[in-house]
Amino acid sequence: MTSKPTRRTGGRAARVASRTAPLEQNMRPVRPGMEGGHYTPLSPSEVERIHLAALDALEQIGLADAPQSGIDVMVGAGAILGDDGRLRFPRALVEDMLAKAAKTITLCGRDPKHDMQIGGNNVYYGTAGAAVHMVDVLSHDYRDSTVQDLHDAARIADVLDNIHFVQRPMVARDIVDNCEMDLNTVYATVTGTTKHVGTSFFEPGFVADGVKLLHMIAGGEAAWRARPFVSISSCFVVPPMRFATDACLVMERCIEAGFPVLLLSAGQAGATAPASLAGAVMQAVAECLAGVVYVNAISPGYPAIFGTWPFVSDLRTGAMSGGSGEQALLTAACAQMHHFYGLPGAAPAGIADAKLPDMQAGWEQGISNVMAGLSGLNMVYEAAGMHASLLGFCHESLILGDDLIGQALRCLRGIEVSEDTLALDAMRSVCIGGPQHYLGHEQTLSLMQTEYLYPALASRASPKEWEEQGRPELIPAAIRRKQEILAQPSRAMLDPVLDAQIRARFNIHL
Amino acid sequence: MTSKPTRRTGGRAARVASRTAPLEQNMRPVRPGMEGGHYTPLSPSEVERIHLAALDALEQIGLADAPQSGIDVMVGAGAILGDDGRLRFPRALVEDMLAKAAKTITLCGRDPKHDMQIGGNNVYYGTAGAAVHMVDVLSHDYRDSTVQDLHDAARIADVLDNIHFVQRPMVARDIVDNCEMDLNTVYATVTGTTKHVGTSFFEPGFVADGVKLLHMIAGGEAAWRARPFVSISSCFVVPPMRFATDACLVMERCIEAGFPVLLLSAGQAGATAPASLAGAVMQAVAECLAGVVYVNAISPGYPAIFGTWPFVSDLRTGAMSGGSGEQALLTAACAQMHHFYGLPGAAPAGIADAKLPDMQAGWEQGISNVMAGLSGLNMVYEAAGMHASLLGFCHESLILGDDLIGQALRCLRGIEVSEDTLALDAMRSVCIGGPQHYLGHEQTLSLMQTEYLYPALASRASPKEWEEQGRPELIPAAIRRKQEILAQPSRAMLDPVLDAQIRARFNIHL
Repeated sequence: MTSKPTRRTGGRAARVASRTAPLEQNMRPVRPGMEGGHYTPLSPSEVERIHLAALDALEQIGLADAPQSGIDVMVGAGAILGDDGRLRFPRALVEDMLAKAAKTITLCGRDPKHDMQIGGNNVYYGTAGAAVHMVDVLSHDYRDSTVQDLHDAARIADVLDNIHFVQRPMVARDIVDNCEMDLNTVYATVTGTTKHVGTSFFEPGFVADGVKLLHMIAGGEAAWRARPFVSISSCFVVPPMRFATDACLVMERCIEAGFPVLLLSAGQAGATAPASLAGAVMQAVAECLAGVVYVNAISPGYPAIFGTWPFVSDLRTGAMSGGSGEQALLTAACAQMHHFYGLPGAAPAGIADAKLPDMQAGWEQGISNVMAGLSGLNMVYEAAGMHASLLGFCHESLILGDDLIGQALRCLRGIEVSEDTLALDAMRSVCIGGPQHYLGHEQTLSLMQTEYLYPALASRASPKEWEEQGRPELIPAAIRRKQEILAQPSRAMLDPVLDAQIRARFNIHL
Repeated sequence: MTSKPTRRTGGRAARVASRTAPLEQNMRPVRPGMEGGHYTPLSPSEVERIHLAALDALEQIGLADAPQSGIDVMVGAGAILGDDGRLRFPRALVEDMLAKAAKTITLCGRDPKHDMQIGGNNVYYGTAGAAVHMVDVLSHDYRDSTVQDLHDAARIADVLDNIHFVQRPMVARDIVDNCEMDLNTVYATVTGTTKHVGTSFFEPGFVADGVKLLHMIAGGEAAWRARPFVSISSCFVVPPMRFATDACLVMERCIEAGFPVLLLSAGQAGATAPASLAGAVMQAVAECLAGVVYVNAISPGYPAIFGTWPFVSDLRTGAMSGGSGEQALLTAACAQMHHFYGLPGAAPAGIADAKLPDMQAGWEQGISNVMAGLSGLNMVYEAAGMHASLLGFCHESLILGDDLIGQALRCLRGIEVSEDTLALDAMRSVCIGGPQHYLGHEQTLSLMQTEYLYPALASRASPKEWEEQGRPELIPAAIRRKQEILAQPSRAMLDPVLDAQIRARFNIHL
């Protein structure tokens, strides 16, 4: 056979080729949904104490401001409406609803290969937020974010392996009408990525258009309900311990329409939640437990995510500090509470206080993202691209976040201990009559791609190589990558006929 | 009394004054030697398996190349010298020596306020390394490092709260003679900081001058031996599984002279250690156990630190990658092995592969430093300032590392759960007839300084404030801080008479 390679160089060439070929998904060293959980900031008895305090809070303090429909359904389930207008939740009611609640849920991608199993210690990272600015990495300007920025963010996230879902990270400020903004937010995100999408609606009346749009994209209501590829973030409480009346009505309509629901309690420690970290976690747990009662009273076992979302205040100024160590602790502790209840859970991490993607941003995003992953948090929201404590979003930072989160995923994957990996035989053959090093050892070559993660943009060059390469910097590399991605057509584009129908029906700004 | 403040503004002024005053050390939210340990990458049975494999390696493979003096003392203790020249260690010998080994040791600062208790889950961060370049953050040049750079690094580290000890992070390349370099390294570091110092000696013959210098600084041999404020890093092995003959002789002399010893096994996974992470940890453990036998055979209970120091290769190039997730895992797993043996332990973290203090450097240093802290690693070496996988050191990065490590310390401090911190009473008073927020609550004010850590240089300004401040950037702020620190005289300066005596006796290049 003429194509047969010569013995030596051919074998080497084949090995090199196999090493540089893209790996199958199941061979990659990091994957969506890997299991964390080796980090537990709270002891089991501390988890229990937080749980018991949350039950006390629900039973004794309760929540104000539920809408009448919510009062009806929760009182029907066993909640007690006080003369002070607060709904209180007997312990048995909470425990019954916890028993009914969905334990592991699937969040669908528009492409099924992006489906996520939310539960256990599985970890997924994604974007989220409501930034009002885009960060320009060259001019350092903070300018208003637009619907095009949002679409571009979705398109970028679509091609990044370590961004597993895409909730809209910024507000389309160029759209004045709130209803049109909600609708265009869905359109811009869903046409940018086939990964699972998260969104929200300002008012109950805005839900219907969004649902219609999603039915059209899915190919009808039945197809949408079979695989809802958009979930809804519901800020159903105004901490401390009040229902957000309108948001509750939005949530009720979204449940009716089949959106999986993120029950999001976003208190700010020292402002709308206790300043003590334990207290902030406890309050978020209590509020989300109220949400669990609410959702399961409407529809037992309905797919809902326990979204304890305590933020941190810089107590000197009252401003938020998403990049603090305190934030990283709050999030990791929340993950433990989710595991205690056995519910699918979510919390924020990866937020930078830094205004630019600089060293500060790196440590802020790195520390909180790796702690979230190690804690086994199911859904790490706001994990990439976020600056100025959620006020600014940055495309280049999102791209760099893919390397950063890859590293966090490698860490939560951990260390495999087995007879093979302990490598006593390899050590013996290397040390006794062997080459005294492991460089060409069979084990080294076989682990090179499956055990070791290589960053896409982060540089590992030596100073000499770096010099020869012209001292490449990180931000310009991210800019080039962004341009490459956006030069390609969106992988999530709709069929042109369908798209025309959508545009005929709705005012699409994109 | 005329000085009595008016009721309202005076009270507020007093509160503001008390909040902005420096906190007593024991009130600060982070402190040297805080306890980590909530993160355990290995299960107890995995720890046990690594231990057993290391015992097998010592018994079956053993270590080559011990110097005759080492062979004599270890064979005397029960090691077996094979015909192949390898020293093998029966399991019972290792266990006996582990029983004799010092469990918690004190590393002294020249100023006793910097003494460190190394053991348990106490965590201290410090510098170390052998960088050959200084990173210029303005020109981006990598230039040769000098003894003045080293002295400046020590002076900077001396004033940074979260740098707890100072091992020389770079080589004084302007000193040609190796003996003079070793001596000047000690001088430049010790005169820059009163914190505990780490150093090393190239050759056995170089130790005597260093000891003489330290006796002079301490005020005599007895004072030195009572409080040895310099420890020695001993690269006593050449992985895999060989003693470093000369370094062993250096170590023997240093033990004689009373230096605490860091037993440093620095294999590189995939090159001089197995490519599997478990194998790399196992080999480092086996080598350090050999060191424990060696030291305790010379002097039972002698202060020694279990310095498992496995590095990571980028297997595509063979180059080191200190900034990888794999490195962070290796280091955290090593900490667990230290805890298993109950020995004081050390490992590297905080190394950036990034050439500059950029976003990559931030996540690389942040992820590995926080994981080291959470794992309860006693001594985190190379924790700040390190770039290009240990080839470059950067003063400005060291300064930023103080903020970064502060954040890691805040994380390892964790969350206190108590009746007070659960804050049910605060929640009740806020929610029921209260202000519906915690802003002015007594608990908030009292926790503001003791529970929350505020970075020195990292910016938490809003985009608007940042704009008003002229868009300050991180690196210029670090440069200014460096200039401020170096404009002050060294806090560790020697008495001029003593200094003159030292300069009369030794060729001091500084």
